[in-house]
Amino acid sequence: MGRYAVGVDFGSLSGRAVLVDLRTGEVRASAVYAYPHAVMSRALPDGTPLPDDWALQHPQDYLDVLTHTVPELLRSTGVSKEDVAAIGVDCTASTALPVRTDGKALSLLPEFQSHPHAYVKMWKHHGAQRLADEMTRAAAERGEDFLPYYGGRVSSEWSLPKLWEIVRDDPEVCRAADRWVEAADWVVWQLCGKFTPNACAMGYKAFWRKGKGYPSRDYLAVLDERLLRAVEQKFGGDPLPPGSPAGFLTKKGAALTGLAVGTAVAVGGVDAHVCVPAAGIDAPGTLLAIIGTSTCHMLLSDRAVPVPGVCGVVEDGILPGFFGYEAGQTCVGDGFAWYLDNCLPASCRDEARQEGKSLHAYLRERAARLAPGESGLLALDWLNGNRSVLTDASLSGLLVGATLRTRPEEIYRALLESTAFGTRRIVENFREHGVAVEHFAAAGGIPPKDPLMMQIYADVLGMPVRTADPAQNPALGSAILAAVAAGKRRGGFDSVSEAVRTLGGLSGSVYTPDPAAHAVYDRLYAEYRTLHDYFGLENNVMKRLREIRAGS
Amino acid sequence: MGRYAVGVDFGSLSGRAVLVDLRTGEVRASAVYAYPHAVMSRALPDGTPLPDDWALQHPQDYLDVLTHTVPELLRSTGVSKEDVAAIGVDCTASTALPVRTDGKALSLLPEFQSHPHAYVKMWKHHGAQRLADEMTRAAAERGEDFLPYYGGRVSSEWSLPKLWEIVRDDPEVCRAADRWVEAADWVVWQLCGKFTPNACAMGYKAFWRKGKGYPSRDYLAVLDERLLRAVEQKFGGDPLPPGSPAGFLTKKGAALTGLAVGTAVAVGGVDAHVCVPAAGIDAPGTLLAIIGTSTCHMLLSDRAVPVPGVCGVVEDGILPGFFGYEAGQTCVGDGFAWYLDNCLPASCRDEARQEGKSLHAYLRERAARLAPGESGLLALDWLNGNRSVLTDASLSGLLVGATLRTRPEEIYRALLESTAFGTRRIVENFREHGVAVEHFAAAGGIPPKDPLMMQIYADVLGMPVRTADPAQNPALGSAILAAVAAGKRRGGFDSVSEAVRTLGGLSGSVYTPDPAAHAVYDRLYAEYRTLHDYFGLENNVMKRLREIRAGS
Repeated sequence: MGRYAVGVDFGSLSGRAVLVDLRTGEVRASAVYAYPHAVMSRALPDGTPLPDDWALQHPQDYLDVLTHTVPELLRSTGVSKEDVAAIGVDCTASTALPVRTDGKALSLLPEFQSHPHAYVKMWKHHGAQRLADEMTRAAAERGEDFLPYYGGRVSSEWSLPKLWEIVRDDPEVCRAADRWVEAADWVVWQLCGKFTPNACAMGYKAFWRKGKGYPSRDYLAVLDERLLRAVEQKFGGDPLPPGSPAGFLTKKGAALTGLAVGTAVAVGGVDAHVCVPAAGIDAPGTLLAIIGTSTCHMLLSDRAVPVPGVCGVVEDGILPGFFGYEAGQTCVGDGFAWYLDNCLPASCRDEARQEGKSLHAYLRERAARLAPGESGLLALDWLNGNRSVLTDASLSGLLVGATLRTRPEEIYRALLESTAFGTRRIVENFREHGVAVEHFAAAGGIPPKDPLMMQIYADVLGMPVRTADPAQNPALGSAILAAVAAGKRRGGFDSVSEAVRTLGGLSGSVYTPDPAAHAVYDRLYAEYRTLHDYFGLENNVMKRLREIRAGS
Repeated sequence: MGRYAVGVDFGSLSGRAVLVDLRTGEVRASAVYAYPHAVMSRALPDGTPLPDDWALQHPQDYLDVLTHTVPELLRSTGVSKEDVAAIGVDCTASTALPVRTDGKALSLLPEFQSHPHAYVKMWKHHGAQRLADEMTRAAAERGEDFLPYYGGRVSSEWSLPKLWEIVRDDPEVCRAADRWVEAADWVVWQLCGKFTPNACAMGYKAFWRKGKGYPSRDYLAVLDERLLRAVEQKFGGDPLPPGSPAGFLTKKGAALTGLAVGTAVAVGGVDAHVCVPAAGIDAPGTLLAIIGTSTCHMLLSDRAVPVPGVCGVVEDGILPGFFGYEAGQTCVGDGFAWYLDNCLPASCRDEARQEGKSLHAYLRERAARLAPGESGLLALDWLNGNRSVLTDASLSGLLVGATLRTRPEEIYRALLESTAFGTRRIVENFREHGVAVEHFAAAGGIPPKDPLMMQIYADVLGMPVRTADPAQNPALGSAILAAVAAGKRRGGFDSVSEAVRTLGGLSGSVYTPDPAAHAVYDRLYAEYRTLHDYFGLENNVMKRLREIRAGS
């Protein structure tokens, strides 16, 4: 009976493993390993060039993460491998690869080394944009019933367009690929010798629905008979919900991790979604925002409602027994970074240097001195399009209210505020469609670093914002779900709730809304909402500017 | 009989004098002298502090300009004072001062040295904003017939609010001030010993209309009986049109200038308006844009039409025999300077330094490589409000279309383009109301320096843009009008046309519209127009943001 669980989170550039004490929830150790191949966007390792918009990963990197981090957890703590009850993993999604029936990734075979389609297509691989658009059009025309549950749009970041790309463009890879596998599920396969797709990735990224399966045969056949066959043959059996056991560590899996043969292995998960148990959330009503370069919003509900503009509504998708809702904002930290690179004047850089501060710290300090509304500015948070509510990638940024007196920190604050308004719009959209949002929690890279932004979120939303500390990350979520997969008998938990409440939580700061600030932000949000609808729905100037740009 | 005329332009920070050859139009010499007191916005010379929004000048500075520059023109050219037929002056407006009946400026008297209201109130003195608003409200309520000819609004930069401020706030100055005089008219008074108000300043800045005079007694009495008395007593007799003789140099005037006693002196003028003769314009149909920190648009017409949103329509206001129309954009060069100070990233400054270029030159070079529409951006040119067409100082800036790929030179170009769209809106507004605009000319500080901007103006307007060279400035215009005042008998001209055609002109570059670029700009202008009306007339978000700001 083990006292510990291991969780491994495969991110965009590195993997992180944690060792969690199953009695206290303490993260005893963590270890990070950067992918040697990072993101391949220009060429394969042998020099084969890649088209624009491609983003691949190398599956060997995932195995290297296991061998470099998990043994380190034991070494650094002195914990014995017999004391580890279970291991669970999560990855970005849809990040998927073609695999042989024996579990071998095609890209690890010499004969496919020069085939771009043999590698892992990362979530941000956009090579299948045209195919995704074609899928959206056909699904909308045919009134496919899955579409309303996915915000009315097929993203090129999802699984089926990426698979279709292989079907069309590389028949050799298509023939050799017995399976089309999410990276997390492939790692689980390497650990326990068995392929078990996970309901989270399949639900959010491949339109799989409990009791209904994948999109209809007719729809797929209309798109491409070969795609229909690929979906039928390569996805494997019914996906299992988070916290399900996938199997036990094989000899090979034990060799990769340094853990004991027979250790429980959980089904894989998706990085954003496993943050929910990490944040201690096990019930409807709390919206969790995972805030980094972009923001993902996670929400549990007892009801399945096709909320317009929500990226996905998946039964058992986040935690078993609930409908999991996913929404998102495409540009949060990315927007602040763009501002710093492209709009922050030299004078600010010079002053920040003199004061020995980072640019963000310098700007935050000045922006924090401003009262809500004092800048006179209002922005729309669409520098990278709008993912939720409007679900329109062709929207763009807007700043209104600048005068000759406008200062850099005022623009910076307006950008912070715009992301808070965007989040409020998502919260209100849920509520307007009958999905309760009673509490707000924030995890991800930014909340622990940016108290100003969190206070603004509290003031804009009119709700307290409870934040996770940096240790409450996806790897902890995977460890919690692994403990559920192990079950009480092996030292874990028999119920998800018990595991989540014992091991997860929000131990960062809590930000309480200031009533006066909230009143001002109510007025500003009303203006935001008007401009949101005007530029999102009424005046298509942003789309036309793109068209004019494309023709120039 | 003289062969030369002298023109002196009193700007915001310095005065410039030119010596013009009346046979060839050649500017033989020019001399500049910076005002020792510059603009007084914080304190009087004796330390008396000034309220916010104040901007004063010192009348001694104007006299110092005369003594430092005019003699220098003769010295440097060897021209004899007997060969100078006439002198004319212009100044910013309304830039006015209280004066005793003997011509003495109150601020030059020891007993008024500490009275802020005794000094010259410069055009950009905004201390009387509240009074100007009160004048607008009362005039609109009463349906005063002057209002439609002034864009429907009384500006705090104009003469009457500044006079009213004295009436209310400094009874001592009000009592001692026999006259309330435009600075140009005060200089003319010093030169020829006689007070002659000029029809340009009185027409554009004090609502004086030929045959009708100043605003009605009833209106003024409703505002303030004391203001009515001040207007009746302090403005002097009927103003004279540009090119009229004011008198002849007295001994005192000769001592100030080094010119001969008896030299003809023309009535004063306003700096923007005297650019029209300098640019060689003597007939309707050519819009002259004087482009600098802000832009003034000057247009002659045979008809008086109350064009909505036009700052002023004044008979004989620009040249005798025509109705002169004035429009404007409040933020042109000022906006680019704001952008450089507040939004240009350090990386651009570093690169500009490495390339040994000014920031403007660096940005222009990069912006010039972009095709029309390529930035995907669109801006409204209202960082300092909107002076013409919408006439609303509470409007503010807008930028739409930014994405994570947007670069600084794209934003810079969008700002340039926005001022061209603003100018096109003014041109179309004239045309929509039956005032012809057939040609477009550009003078002022920016056109000789910014070929990219001028090409954009040609492409946006779909009209050739003819530009003045730097010598074709207000001082030349004043010299031309002085030559008219002198008349043929003294070596000048008997007709304005003859003087303008002989001495004025547009000898800078000519920019021809590119049809393909114009077609793209037609599409962008349609978007500009939609947003112009939406934010200017339909959605008052810009005003509400100001209100929220004011309350914060």
